[in-house]
Amino acid sequence: MMKISGQNKLPGEIIALKKGEVECQVTIQVNENKVVSVITRDSAEEMNLKIGDRVIALIKASEVMIMKD
Amino acid sequence: MMKISGQNKLPGEIIALKKGEVECQVTIQVNENKVVSVITRDSAEEMNLKIGDRVIALIKASEVMIMKD
Amino acid sequence: MMKISGQNKLPGEIIALKKGEVECQVTIQVNENKVVSVITRDSAEEMNLKIGDRVIALIKASEVMIMKD
Amino acid sequence: MMKISGQNKLPGEIIALKKGEVECQVTIQVNENKVVSVITRDSAEEMNLKIGDRVIALIKASEVMIMKD
Amino acid sequence: MMKISGQNKLPGEIIALKKGEVECQVTIQVNENKVVSVITRDSAEEMNLKIGDRVIALIKASEVMIMKD
Amino acid sequence: MMKISGQNKLPGEIIALKKGEVECQVTIQVNENKVVSVITRDSAEEMNLKIGDRVIALIKASEVMIMKD
Repeated sequence: MMKISGQNKLPGEIIALKKGEVECQVTIQVNENKVVSVITRDSAEEMNLKIGDRVIALIKASEVMIMKD
Repeated sequence: MMKISGQNKLPGEIIALKKGEVECQVTIQVNENKVVSVITRDSAEEMNLKIGDRVIALIKASEVMIMKD
Repeated sequence: MMKISGQNKLPGEIIALKKGEVECQVTIQVNENKVVSVITRDSAEEMNLKIGDRVIALIKASEVMIMKD
Repeated sequence: MMKISGQNKLPGEIIALKKGEVECQVTIQVNENKVVSVITRDSAEEMNLKIGDRVIALIKASEVMIMKD
Repeated sequence: MMKISGQNKLPGEIIALKKGEVECQVTIQVNENKVVSVITRDSAEEMNLKIGDRVIALIKASEVMIMKD
Repeated sequence: MMKISGQNKLPGEIIALKKGEVECQVTIQVNENKVVSVITRDSAEEMNLKIGDRVIALIKASEVMIMKD
């Protein structure tokens, strides 16, 4: 099985898709959180992404910031 | 209240901290998922991050990739 | 007050906005420099960004490269 | 002259350097703001970065978030 | 000569360009691999990028993930 | 087979590894180019990366900048 270094893999379901000419915004329901991704429209079409798909949001650890009250 | 453009704000609790000279790895329990963040050690110390803290993982939408079986 | 791990917080004023279907380009005057940001159009609208707004450009340290002659 | 797509080029002076085994944190004074960069230690050594150097912080527009009160 | 901290500099030739309102997708042939870049449309126009141009894809080491079977 | 939205997948062989406390630098020979990646040390160990491994460098299109003479 393919292993990937990205530490964050959040499974969920696509609940919205919005396409621009170059980019595509994909909204994923991950438990009670919404995770929004912007990928290329080409990728979204090659993967044939559609509402209801089970997918995994993949995020490199170095891209995650932290907020605290 | 401060508004931030980053679309992804995942609330959770810090369950592990590992410090290097420059970077600090922070592991956050977000529901049943673990979210791993790498920030500067300086930021972790200025924010006084410690295990048990309630924090929010902040991720820009353009940093989120998608995987699908 | 909310603390954020991102080390770079550059205050300035929005001087231009350009909207695509998915993304929005925001130009901020920070002293004599212009800082250009691309965020989602959704974020720009949720934050009601407009020309003349005082904002802060937030940049994670790991996203900053260095050039030298 | 070399042209680079990164929209944000902030000139300043290195005021601090902190080296880890893999990464190097470089602090740059840009007008009244401090800009912190984390690059590889290898890059810092190949470029022979040192305090007092005039450099340019280079940031891709898609890496800039926006905060607003 | 300008030195840049980004460790990855892949030379190639532009083989496709697709413009949106804000972003521009640039496809570069690098040996037998295709490298796809999304930059701002403004950058693409300021650099006058066109098919056939010899360019270099510049990537920060912290943005590269690793996959292994 | 797992599909991934990241447009850039560059196959090569690991030729060097350097470990810090938090991060690990992985150098991959991709044809005549070297590609340098910084991932977490945890990921490198979970994937059991070692010199000689065949791997794929994965890069999101929005992380690729362009330089031109």
